[in-house]
Amino acid sequence: MSQNLGELVRGMNVALLTTACPDGSLRSRPMVALEPEPDGTLWFFTREHSSKVEEVEGHEEVNVSYADHPGQRYVSVSGKARPVRDRERMRRLWGPALLAWFPRGLDDPDLALLRVDVDRAEHWDARSGAMVPVAPGRDLQGARG
Amino acid sequence: MSQNLGELVRGMNVALLTTACPDGSLRSRPMVALEPEPDGTLWFFTREHSSKVEEVEGHEEVNVSYADHPGQRYVSVSGKARPVRDRERMRRLWGPALLAWFPRGLDDPDLALLRVDVDRAEHWDARSGAMVPVAPGRDLQGARG
Repeated sequence: MSQNLGELVRGMNVALLTTACPDGSLRSRPMVALEPEPDGTLWFFTREHSSKVEEVEGHEEVNVSYADHPGQRYVSVSGKARPVRDRERMRRLWGPALLAWFPRGLDDPDLALLRVDVDRAEHWDARSGAMVPVAPGRDLQGARG
Repeated sequence: MSQNLGELVRGMNVALLTTACPDGSLRSRPMVALEPEPDGTLWFFTREHSSKVEEVEGHEEVNVSYADHPGQRYVSVSGKARPVRDRERMRRLWGPALLAWFPRGLDDPDLALLRVDVDRAEHWDARSGAMVPVAPGRDLQGARG
């Protein structure tokens, strides 16, 4: 049964964002995971002045990983990221869970969003021991499965 | 207090390996995490005929991420990976936990190792909300901290 991205990452509140540095090396860090948009687009809060924003401005391709070890759920999202400075969208996406990561809240002048447009989503299939395609959005359900 | 990589990832039995594809996109998948060598070098079992082996042969830079959500422990390792076909080392590194992932065990002719030489290791510091350097090995403890 094909599942879409939103269903597969439900309840996973932290994702790992991997970016590429100018020297080709790859770095990761945890991010508060918000619910994907219906088409699979991902949004994250970030600090505008941060190495990850510099890294995506140099190389837009990123990976977003979700890991639920007890549930053996692993999801890999390959996409393109860019910083977005949209205060109205920030207000819509903000939730109290973000306060632990951004204690100054929406008043933080360094707060920004990172938008990730999904090119490929896969999830771990324990039976076959392989990653299998996931349809990013509801409209595409089954299209890549 | 500076901690080395082996201490920081203790008890984290699954890591996420992110590789770069020829088109620049980044993919990840879960891997059984073995204890790092004293100098930080990481070893993973893999299938020799797999996309991750193809990907590291095209672009040796990888990221290995460890995530312990309840403990808020997040570790990022940037390094260079290469497949290694060394049956003697496989026998030394093999353990029963690997059977769930490689049911044919050491007799699997497609079994190989992936060696990751560490260039940079970082861990999430919840207080500052930033990644901070980790000394990869015991001998280097504190050298990058």
